[in-house]
Amino acid sequence: MKIISQTTAFGGMQGVFAHESTACNGEMTFAVYVPPQATREPRPVLWYLSGLTCTHANVMEKGEYRRMAAELGLIVVCPDTSPRGADVADELTNWQMGKGAGFYLDATEAPWAEHYRMYSYITEELPALVREHFRVDMDRQGIFGHSMGGHGAMTIALRNPERLRSCSAFAPIVAPSSADWSVGAFEKYLGADKAAWRKYDACALVEDGARFPEFLIDQGKADGFLDNGLRPGLFEAAVKDTGIGLTLRMHERYDHSYYFISTFMDDHLRWHADRLG
Amino acid sequence: MKIISQTTAFGGMQGVFAHESTACNGEMTFAVYVPPQATREPRPVLWYLSGLTCTHANVMEKGEYRRMAAELGLIVVCPDTSPRGADVADELTNWQMGKGAGFYLDATEAPWAEHYRMYSYITEELPALVREHFRVDMDRQGIFGHSMGGHGAMTIALRNPERLRSCSAFAPIVAPSSADWSVGAFEKYLGADKAAWRKYDACALVEDGARFPEFLIDQGKADGFLDNGLRPGLFEAAVKDTGIGLTLRMHERYDHSYYFISTFMDDHLRWHADRLG
Repeated sequence: MKIISQTTAFGGMQGVFAHESTACNGEMTFAVYVPPQATREPRPVLWYLSGLTCTHANVMEKGEYRRMAAELGLIVVCPDTSPRGADVADELTNWQMGKGAGFYLDATEAPWAEHYRMYSYITEELPALVREHFRVDMDRQGIFGHSMGGHGAMTIALRNPERLRSCSAFAPIVAPSSADWSVGAFEKYLGADKAAWRKYDACALVEDGARFPEFLIDQGKADGFLDNGLRPGLFEAAVKDTGIGLTLRMHERYDHSYYFISTFMDDHLRWHADRLG
Repeated sequence: MKIISQTTAFGGMQGVFAHESTACNGEMTFAVYVPPQATREPRPVLWYLSGLTCTHANVMEKGEYRRMAAELGLIVVCPDTSPRGADVADELTNWQMGKGAGFYLDATEAPWAEHYRMYSYITEELPALVREHFRVDMDRQGIFGHSMGGHGAMTIALRNPERLRSCSAFAPIVAPSSADWSVGAFEKYLGADKAAWRKYDACALVEDGARFPEFLIDQGKADGFLDNGLRPGLFEAAVKDTGIGLTLRMHERYDHSYYFISTFMDDHLRWHADRLG
């Protein structure tokens, strides 16, 4: 693992690291915040998955998570959103496909399958690496994310309830199989057979029987992507009568930006800390 | 005044605005955070001056000031660090001179004097504009800043104690007349006669009799600019036996970045709120 930077913040350490990824078949970069408590004992770990066009850096710079993570003693890991590098397939003029738009799935179609294996990367390879290098309590893991990363967090939680104990999302894409900005990507990554899309779609996963104890979702009502891309009401309908808990908070005047995310970041970190013990 | 953006954050509004500046002879951009309390009553205003290479955007994105500003009801104004535009003199390969390096002074030398009048801009023109457009209580003004902006905040406070009631700084340049990264700029902006530099030098101002009640300074001990550029010990020596209060806190492991600034931002906002009432 290569150290890109390590900086003191709120008594802990904000680091950026790079490593050769087997899952993504190339170098991957991620950020980790280690709170001061981790010098004394293993601490719970939170995975934060970012939205379209982001790298690890957006939330690291604008997410405002370190103060509360330091207070609660949470390790926060922020991966990139896709494979990177000159040999990685991309659509240069399409921000909803390719680099910055990995959708946290394992692509099966050429040319994408060669590198775009973010599901395996986030659920297997990166946890193993983080366990090896940081003082984490892997029995206490939570996951959250924004937009495409909210989709990633919710689908990964629904498919790994034995490993993840908490999940929350800021303005998530809850039904990517039918959302404006993901249908095109899903078809290219996964092929035309929509049956293969269902394990990467939170609403479809719940319909197919996947379960997770409860979700927290915050959504701005002034978010321009609300009606065509995000549609949290679909998830609210999907979990009805399933026993899955959902706290869905709709906020007047808030948009899709990190100004929205940072406003509610403390609430999310507390949500996870309460459930991770 | 032109609205560049207005975004809801922490119940208030983070805005970016542009206007034609008389002082700087061209368009200037600045950021303002308005806390929710300002919808009901005039609120105190804090001026945040940024460091070399910054615009208004660095602290707006990485400073993490909105949560506490909303809690305390503080309006926070973040100006740019220099005039901008194609017709503004610059040294393209020198980050310590020209654009991004206005040093909060009124230049007297050609070609700089045509636009570089940041002292007049910050102390006269921008306050008048802010008073006109936002619900500010101009009897409760504080000022703070980082690095070159800490220099700006301290010199402006020392020269305007009747208007400013509180001042603090993150890693300020306290003696720019003799610091590595400012001597060259001062000579070009102000000419070779060092007597003209003294009113833009916090240590020299105190030596010459300027007074301000008290300062808070936070400084990282792992800051690479500490010994040649910042040297807070010089200010500590300058205020000795003057009656000027100084709380100088030296922090192990912290560097010069916004990770350092954001860590201590809450303390600074509380420092100002305590003094602004």
